[in-house]
Amino acid sequence: MNTEILREYRARIDELDEQLICLLAERFEITKTVGELKAETGLPAADPQREKEQIARLHEIARNEGMDPVFGEKVFRLIVDEVIRHHLQTADKHGDLEA
Amino acid sequence: MNTEILREYRARIDELDEQLICLLAERFEITKTVGELKAETGLPAADPQREKEQIARLHEIARNEGMDPVFGEKVFRLIVDEVIRHHLQTADKHGDLEA
Repeated sequence: MNTEILREYRARIDELDEQLICLLAERFEITKTVGELKAETGLPAADPQREKEQIARLHEIARNEGMDPVFGEKVFRLIVDEVIRHHLQTADKHGDLEA
Repeated sequence: MNTEILREYRARIDELDEQLICLLAERFEITKTVGELKAETGLPAADPQREKEQIARLHEIARNEGMDPVFGEKVFRLIVDEVIRHHLQTADKHGDLEA
């Protein structure tokens, strides 16, 4: 295998991975704020209807981009489960403050 | 909860998720080419040393971005396992052609 070609591909993969982390970090910043608002107003951590709409939309985007929608959903599920975990922690803390 | 604020946050989350899918699609396009090159030259699908370096780098980026590095690694693991699965399929097909 041409080492130079592999090096170039890997450099681009590293760039994409860095963007991926930055994007996820921004996403968690936003959901953190949403979690606080939800806790203040006593809204549930999860929103199954919203998730359903998000998954349908992401499936379509994935198909348009030539990516396996099932894999896209797996990544989404991993992220949303983490968001819900954060929301529950925030709600717990909020409950402690009110207790 | 202010519905307008929630709507704005969700619109930004949707934008970020679209970018996430586009970024992953580009990443899989590249790794697909890498997989073909690896299969042609008989190189193994996985590269533990490269993965180790990638994880260390992503941990640092995650920390700088204020994101949980453990979660960043989970996402990375999910992606890399999928890439390796693709590589093995490609190697299999290549083997069939040569058989």
